[in-house]
Amino acid sequence: MPQKVLIFSRFPKALMLRIGERFDLLDAAGKPPNEVFSTDELSGIRAMITAGGTPLGGGMMDMMPKLGAIVCYGTGYDGVDLAAAAGRKIVVGHSPGANAASVADIAVTLMLAVTRRLLPADNYVRSGNWSDAKPSPLMRPQPGNPGRKVGIYGMGEIGRKIAARVAAFECEVAYFSRSRHDVPYQYLPSLEALAEWCSVLMIAVRAGADTHHAVNANILQKLGKDGYVVNIARGSAIDQQALVAALADETIAGAGLDVYEKEPHAPDVLTAFPNVVLTPHVGGHTLDAHTAMQNCVIANLEAYFAGRPLPYAVRNL
Amino acid sequence: MPQKVLIFSRFPKALMLRIGERFDLLDAAGKPPNEVFSTDELSGIRAMITAGGTPLGGGMMDMMPKLGAIVCYGTGYDGVDLAAAAGRKIVVGHSPGANAASVADIAVTLMLAVTRRLLPADNYVRSGNWSDAKPSPLMRPQPGNPGRKVGIYGMGEIGRKIAARVAAFECEVAYFSRSRHDVPYQYLPSLEALAEWCSVLMIAVRAGADTHHAVNANILQKLGKDGYVVNIARGSAIDQQALVAALADETIAGAGLDVYEKEPHAPDVLTAFPNVVLTPHVGGHTLDAHTAMQNCVIANLEAYFAGRPLPYAVRNL
Repeated sequence: MPQKVLIFSRFPKALMLRIGERFDLLDAAGKPPNEVFSTDELSGIRAMITAGGTPLGGGMMDMMPKLGAIVCYGTGYDGVDLAAAAGRKIVVGHSPGANAASVADIAVTLMLAVTRRLLPADNYVRSGNWSDAKPSPLMRPQPGNPGRKVGIYGMGEIGRKIAARVAAFECEVAYFSRSRHDVPYQYLPSLEALAEWCSVLMIAVRAGADTHHAVNANILQKLGKDGYVVNIARGSAIDQQALVAALADETIAGAGLDVYEKEPHAPDVLTAFPNVVLTPHVGGHTLDAHTAMQNCVIANLEAYFAGRPLPYAVRNL
Repeated sequence: MPQKVLIFSRFPKALMLRIGERFDLLDAAGKPPNEVFSTDELSGIRAMITAGGTPLGGGMMDMMPKLGAIVCYGTGYDGVDLAAAAGRKIVVGHSPGANAASVADIAVTLMLAVTRRLLPADNYVRSGNWSDAKPSPLMRPQPGNPGRKVGIYGMGEIGRKIAARVAAFECEVAYFSRSRHDVPYQYLPSLEALAEWCSVLMIAVRAGADTHHAVNANILQKLGKDGYVVNIARGSAIDQQALVAALADETIAGAGLDVYEKEPHAPDVLTAFPNVVLTPHVGGHTLDAHTAMQNCVIANLEAYFAGRPLPYAVRNL
């Protein structure tokens, strides 16, 4: 008989099809599990699948007294209270690197789209303004990629893949992260120095206390009026209110965002800017990335139920 | 006294500022020169600047009896009747490679945007459909870049730069062009074979009789229902009617276009597709590309007026 696994966050059903062939899935679909399932049902659950960004504290864990494994679908695990899990001897797994190419691709897509004003350009054609020869200040030539200084904040799997991609566009690359890495890019000693140096700031850090609102009004000021910020990591890494202010008073030139402080992001002053490109947290959202993430989830769950260590465990537990 | 130079095509004035510091520019702004200037004024003109795609035949050349140099702003020179120019001993120059990085960048931008459905994604956020959790078939996961087969039709400066860029996205690259080149990419013996092999077909050929409507219904059929076509070269390389039909009946998955059979392109059935990304011929439209193209124009004009051969002459004249 297949093992029971609780689905904690709200996931599209299609993403769970392959996992559901191997396990008996109980889908809480983003609601507190005790509102969806009986105490009896929950008492039999030993493992759960969650989205790394969904808050998951000790109280929630305690609804399932036999819970021994929390498996994050994706790279992030910032929503999981790791101390609470450790205190309950619950192991935590994730899908490291599985979506790195896909996320790096959306980062570069956002950079290219916002710096070349792709959305206003498409609209210029579709609206008939091009055929009517209407002047458009948004269509003025912009700086190109060769020689562009791209600063990468964070140099994990995703940061490296962003670096390799933008280097192919003849951009210069530098980075700042907690520690130096063995990579062929210039290391700058602080996020401030990186923002001062670059004209496109790519955020590729893990969410956490040390990166919370790291990109604030001061960093945006250093980035400057020809600068762009691209965030594909977590919304918490940017002080979003400061970003909106920096866009409104033209402290920076534009932004490309796949992640937001609160998701889903509702229409507001941010969604009204013409010089931003906004995607609905789809960085890891390709068929191959999902397959790779599902492979990690399945491998983690199979190992756990077989009494083996998780092959993709969160390391700093 | 500065030499007189006729501006034949319609260019934004800002692009001619640097050239205007060195030459006395007579701007016909896209109209037949004899409608704008007197016979006397035209009789003194020895050189002209044109956009390579603008039709320029012997009749037009004859309006300026002393014309000795036609200088194309940009890489293309397909609008210039080279035989008519040669018959009149008029030399023709262009700006080879000056905008190659800029054009290759827009090619990759279009590929990334159309394959990741960037425009529907941005609209999904801005419209509030994301925050309302409205299902969207357009937001379903799509194939990612690693392992994607990108076929490049044409392997000049622009084709090479496209190849280098997409290779960094972990795509496979193959190409077809009139002749093999010393490049580290697989050569396929025909455009048909390339379309059959690839899932993204990038058009980077020069316009001419041999490339006119080269991408026709048959090629689009070979490209297939998961395939995309990206055109940053000239609109004439695609049979646009066949493309619209292939999009309408889902013979292919989508298209990214910077060039059109008729420019500017007016709103029509093509501009109504959600699975296309359309830009208003802005491939070479970056500040650095314009500076490089202006440098070529200035160098060509200065050489001509000094009685030297053009440094950037059209070779197959």
